[in-house]
Amino acid sequence: MRTFSKKDIDGMDKIYRLNMINSITGYKSANLIGTQSASGIANIAVFSSVIHLGSQPPLLGFILRPTTVPRHTYQNLKANGIFSVNHIHADQIADAHHTSAKYPDNVSEFDHTQLVAQYHSQWPAPFVKDAPIQLACRYQNEYPIEENGTILIVGSIETIYLKEDLLMDDGWVRLDRGNIVAINGLDGYAKPELIERFSYARPKKV
Amino acid sequence: MRTFSKKDIDGMDKIYRLNMINSITGYKSANLIGTQSASGIANIAVFSSVIHLGSQPPLLGFILRPTTVPRHTYQNLKANGIFSVNHIHADQIADAHHTSAKYPDNVSEFDHTQLVAQYHSQWPAPFVKDAPIQLACRYQNEYPIEENGTILIVGSIETIYLKEDLLMDDGWVRLDRGNIVAINGLDGYAKPELIERFSYARPKKV
Repeated sequence: MRTFSKKDIDGMDKIYRLNMINSITGYKSANLIGTQSASGIANIAVFSSVIHLGSQPPLLGFILRPTTVPRHTYQNLKANGIFSVNHIHADQIADAHHTSAKYPDNVSEFDHTQLVAQYHSQWPAPFVKDAPIQLACRYQNEYPIEENGTILIVGSIETIYLKEDLLMDDGWVRLDRGNIVAINGLDGYAKPELIERFSYARPKKV
Repeated sequence: MRTFSKKDIDGMDKIYRLNMINSITGYKSANLIGTQSASGIANIAVFSSVIHLGSQPPLLGFILRPTTVPRHTYQNLKANGIFSVNHIHADQIADAHHTSAKYPDNVSEFDHTQLVAQYHSQWPAPFVKDAPIQLACRYQNEYPIEENGTILIVGSIETIYLKEDLLMDDGWVRLDRGNIVAINGLDGYAKPELIERFSYARPKKV
């Protein structure tokens, strides 16, 4: 095993440390978050920090980096409290990754990628067409993380759209049926395949 | 696309809803968190909520469910402020999943699985032997999520142990080289393989 002490980590080149620390918590979810600005511009941005928070009520969270530079997703979220979460299909990874480029706020990432905006009823945020799972979400709260100035956003899941063949009889959604990817670090995209699904674990008799 | 409204979700059978809502945020990291009780019992438990929070300082987070029932990991964390994060190898998934069984607090999950406790210097928490990545972490803070009573634990990464062949020249850690898994929902274990790694995204010239 290679060992890196706290001192080793502190002494790393910035990019080297970014690459390592972003990788070593394990695979991350791969989602495009859609928002709409007050002036109607559709914004879409890749996030690897969407997490499950609870089932009843259905809640998710994601982490935003410090707001010392403009963050369109955060501005738009605060403007109307609405966003969408769209899973990334393996065929969409190059375009998904490109949404992390810094465009001015009057430019829609949809105009610079092959990603297509889709709208469901009157929901004021764009979804990503052909995403295997789309979630209509509403901002609920935010928790500033004082240790580094990031923000945990908490959102409620209001409507779920998913491709029929991902849905199993007991409500479980089999992600590999949708060719949904996971993220390794900042910039690696991986395609998981199911190995096994287990039943509820109970203590062994002794 | 199948559509589930908020009303549909609220009306679901509890297990059906648990399965669905736990799946639809995407793939989750797969880790075993190791702690040690005040009386010296080694505890190990599977978590799918470990997330990256920041690189400098190196911080991670994970979500604990409400403390209305005993949660050994939380009790131990509060007792000595120390824990370990250990990535799950594809060969360890059955044992990893079994750590979610509810054993009494005087029982070590290491005694009921093939997982082997490993100790590094004087660090007062067990690591999982043969885990491709092991992190020595220190409790920093906690954020109660008022929307559902879960808790975000923030920990600092103090020492990193990783298998040599996962480490790339620029610090990126290639997880599929370690046969590290991802979790789909509550109980599905999937093995990702890298498709592609991209460079830093810059706006396209117009």
